[in-house]
Amino acid sequence: MRIVILGCGRAGAYLAGTLVTDDHQVTVVDKDNAAFARLGPDFAGMLVVGKGIDEDVLRRAGIEQADAFVAVTDDDNTNIMAAQVVREIFGVQRVICRIYDPLREEIYRTMGLETVCPTVLGVTKVREALSR
Amino acid sequence: MRIVILGCGRAGAYLAGTLVTDDHQVTVVDKDNAAFARLGPDFAGMLVVGKGIDEDVLRRAGIEQADAFVAVTDDDNTNIMAAQVVREIFGVQRVICRIYDPLREEIYRTMGLETVCPTVLGVTKVREALSR
Repeated sequence: MRIVILGCGRAGAYLAGTLVTDDHQVTVVDKDNAAFARLGPDFAGMLVVGKGIDEDVLRRAGIEQADAFVAVTDDDNTNIMAAQVVREIFGVQRVICRIYDPLREEIYRTMGLETVCPTVLGVTKVREALSR
Repeated sequence: MRIVILGCGRAGAYLAGTLVTDDHQVTVVDKDNAAFARLGPDFAGMLVVGKGIDEDVLRRAGIEQADAFVAVTDDDNTNIMAAQVVREIFGVQRVICRIYDPLREEIYRTMGLETVCPTVLGVTKVREALSR
């Protein structure tokens, strides 16, 4: 698959590395050049510097040919907005959006966005551990 | 169970709320008073202001009678250090520690710490979604 990842923080870099290993074509977008250092020296994907809510930046990242888009910047609002732009304007089939705030995650999930909430995932894991 | 939670960010507050609902005795520790606002006006647990790596603060939070301790501040190092202090010095049975950095999470898990890594959980969830 051709996958565009927005955000090269810990999650973005880790995800990009595993997806490249799984033989996907990966492009990582980040507004901060220095963030790409997290990918390591042998990263076999593409890099684009720019803001992920900017349509020109997304085009440069090949969003028009992408099969999937994953928004994992550290800002919930950026992820939500980028996910909506990519789904509504570029019509990408698989759009996944990280939202830290459990309340907003529930609202946007109800509205049809495919969301991942690490806060809820972590708390669920802790509760499982406590009940063992 | 008597549970001490260190860190009243999104995860800490969300966890505290669910554990109180499950009838646990919960004490939440945070160095920033304002963080407790996340718990809402009806929170039926105890609050302690202070740094969670400070033994006096932990004693005030009832760590000596605690059945479990969960470290979920936004700083990996604080969580790791607090978890080790609580396990080694206070001998608390269940100690769970959130670590965002997957590399450090693996190292400390190997060393016997019970860890939760939201980065890995989130990436696993995204990969599952992409493979559907």
